[in-house]
Amino acid sequence: MTNIHATTTAAQTTAAQTARPPASPLHARIGAALTGAAIPADLLDLDAHDPLARKREEFTLPGGVVYLDGNSLGALPRAVPERLQQVAAQEWGDALIRSWSAGADRGRDWMNLPDRVAAKIAPLIGALPHEVAVTDTTGVNTFKVLAAALKLAPAERRVILTDAENFPTDLYVAQGLLDLLGGGYELRRVNPDALDGHLTADVAALLLTEVDYRTGRRLDMAAITAQARAAGVLTVWDLAHSAGAFPVDLRGAGADFAVGCGYKFLNGGPGAPSFLFVSERHLGNENAAPVAISGWMGHADPFEMDRAFTPAPGARRFVPGTPMVLSLSALDSALDVFADVDLHALRTKSLSLTDTFIRLMEPLCARFPLTLVTPQEHARRGSQVSYRHPQAREVMADLIGGGVIGDYRTPDILRFGFTPLYHSHADVARAVAGVQAALEARA
Amino acid sequence: MTNIHATTTAAQTTAAQTARPPASPLHARIGAALTGAAIPADLLDLDAHDPLARKREEFTLPGGVVYLDGNSLGALPRAVPERLQQVAAQEWGDALIRSWSAGADRGRDWMNLPDRVAAKIAPLIGALPHEVAVTDTTGVNTFKVLAAALKLAPAERRVILTDAENFPTDLYVAQGLLDLLGGGYELRRVNPDALDGHLTADVAALLLTEVDYRTGRRLDMAAITAQARAAGVLTVWDLAHSAGAFPVDLRGAGADFAVGCGYKFLNGGPGAPSFLFVSERHLGNENAAPVAISGWMGHADPFEMDRAFTPAPGARRFVPGTPMVLSLSALDSALDVFADVDLHALRTKSLSLTDTFIRLMEPLCARFPLTLVTPQEHARRGSQVSYRHPQAREVMADLIGGGVIGDYRTPDILRFGFTPLYHSHADVARAVAGVQAALEARA
Repeated sequence: MTNIHATTTAAQTTAAQTARPPASPLHARIGAALTGAAIPADLLDLDAHDPLARKREEFTLPGGVVYLDGNSLGALPRAVPERLQQVAAQEWGDALIRSWSAGADRGRDWMNLPDRVAAKIAPLIGALPHEVAVTDTTGVNTFKVLAAALKLAPAERRVILTDAENFPTDLYVAQGLLDLLGGGYELRRVNPDALDGHLTADVAALLLTEVDYRTGRRLDMAAITAQARAAGVLTVWDLAHSAGAFPVDLRGAGADFAVGCGYKFLNGGPGAPSFLFVSERHLGNENAAPVAISGWMGHADPFEMDRAFTPAPGARRFVPGTPMVLSLSALDSALDVFADVDLHALRTKSLSLTDTFIRLMEPLCARFPLTLVTPQEHARRGSQVSYRHPQAREVMADLIGGGVIGDYRTPDILRFGFTPLYHSHADVARAVAGVQAALEARA
Repeated sequence: MTNIHATTTAAQTTAAQTARPPASPLHARIGAALTGAAIPADLLDLDAHDPLARKREEFTLPGGVVYLDGNSLGALPRAVPERLQQVAAQEWGDALIRSWSAGADRGRDWMNLPDRVAAKIAPLIGALPHEVAVTDTTGVNTFKVLAAALKLAPAERRVILTDAENFPTDLYVAQGLLDLLGGGYELRRVNPDALDGHLTADVAALLLTEVDYRTGRRLDMAAITAQARAAGVLTVWDLAHSAGAFPVDLRGAGADFAVGCGYKFLNGGPGAPSFLFVSERHLGNENAAPVAISGWMGHADPFEMDRAFTPAPGARRFVPGTPMVLSLSALDSALDVFADVDLHALRTKSLSLTDTFIRLMEPLCARFPLTLVTPQEHARRGSQVSYRHPQAREVMADLIGGGVIGDYRTPDILRFGFTPLYHSHADVARAVAGVQAALEARA
């Protein structure tokens, strides 16, 4: 029903169908620039001393490509296919229904799988394990935590305040919830860099995405959360481009709620289950966050099959339905990549990669109509770098065909995501060589 | 966080951990009765003339087991593991983000995968492809269609009428939605076999599960839907134990909404994505069913990234988030098993299997405290047979340990599901021999 041809470019489709070798002389030229790029000695030196360099071998990546779209779909961790086979053949095919409980003592039962995955995500976002639930999609989780926030807020607070340029789904979900509730609820869109005067007595919740999906601009979560709390406003943070990209400290910031993606920097696979965070302040016996979508998996005793819903003790109460075990197992396996990763080292490398990219791209910005839109200031930058270009859609199609896989975002954004777990500084130089070839061909 | 030991029996866990050979003399005795059962000639004859017998080879099933829990988790279709490998290694690992659009002309892109799966489910439930969406879990979908029904109903209709003994999640979800809405909404629980007098002018929607999860009692969907429509009440059918078990005719019945599971009789794998149905009456430009949880995947043009939500033309509008591609691909592959299946032949065989089971169990009902709770009348029976037994929990644990895998439901139900795609009449005789051994050991 969705007309895919209206939503992607023909070049993207062609590139993926034919894969290597490149399909056109232009793609070949970009590919040659990429693979033949001379790597400056200072970058080789940075790579030689990179404490995370060893992590790259834990991923399977195609040859002839610099993959700069891990902020849309993380690369495949090498261990995942075998785990999927094991889940399909043994746990499903052989043990069948028994797998819901079998292996609970060894941490292999399906019933507690959502909680085990939550416990792996918790340290990446500065949360306690029982404050995290892994379930559903980011949109559905946004709906659930917004609903909880609105119900927790005093009745006279009926406004959701959000970034005017927030990710569309966040806006759609908030508006859909308010339409459902009716009765004077309102979505108010403002500039998140200028919140002063907007945290008024009618605001129930502040819904913000920490890192902007287009510009890569990072907000000051700690300062904004403190400002909101002082004004009696609950915070809902979308960590889509944060979790797994750098250390997040939800508890340190005093956040109330958060959601995030499993398939971006957490590398959980296409459409991997999402996570949500509920501060333990809202999980107590009194004034607990209400569960709008309540299902058997979030019940304190799922197999009792009571007629009334009694919420599970932690954020697990926000898991309504039977988890998608195949997708969830892939995410579970993917998260093991983070087990020995120092998140501060991850952040240091991310900034070094994006600094390098910005520096190497500077000469191209002077020659071509490219405008950097990502903040140069480290504290205000996520793990991506974006540029405006009047033919961004066509340029990105060329790049993808040639092996520099970033993505295009309307209306005119070229977006390049950097993943410190599998990118080297040499990759940055190769990508820039590819961009140069693409821009020169179009000039 | 969930204490699994409180929700299953130790015997179940032990059985699954040790698998074959059976863990105890009792399990060995049940297993021997099962594998050594003499199969009556009339049953061998039925199997010899079974037009669906050839389908069994399309499934991978463990040896030494009669698996009668396909109504909780369908068995593994043989083609699924290879499909999963292909999705993980090629589509994710190699093509990466390009797989969202690549192969659209060959029906292999991820973007339209939910619609392709919907098109495979549509004929199984008597729907048009654009009336079906495949997404989320059954609980979340129940929330979405109930929300749509309440918003479509006139404001003075604020009651959801449901079966007092409905599946707990249906009750929880309905109550959670009404709590969220506040303002005089009410969940009213009645006996679905005696609806007369309950379809009053304050009722917005009737939420019923066609086949009861405990007793296997099937409702008359056509008659009840007609009665509801005549009373101005919208219908929401839960097809958890219907879809894939026998032909369902939602359009013929005039149903408004429906939901169902991908992981039971559709064999889509543990926690497979769910489906929902919205009659095309509610998908038009005027008076369309509103989308409470609206995300980018349900937008008419997802990559435009508009600030306002414009719903996709069909039921696709109810797909809020990025689909869980691994789980959804398994379901897509699993549904191919149905491509050459005559659903009326499926129903005929299902009734023959359950008739046979009821008949062979009769002598045991006379000797032991077993009470059949499934209707004998064909029109009122799904594809499972259930008995009450005062020690149902313990008896089922014994049976599972010995290789007759059914399940226990509180408080005292032994449940046996029959799947015509992979069960023979000989399996029925083997299962009954196992049940006899278990009951004799406990007498």
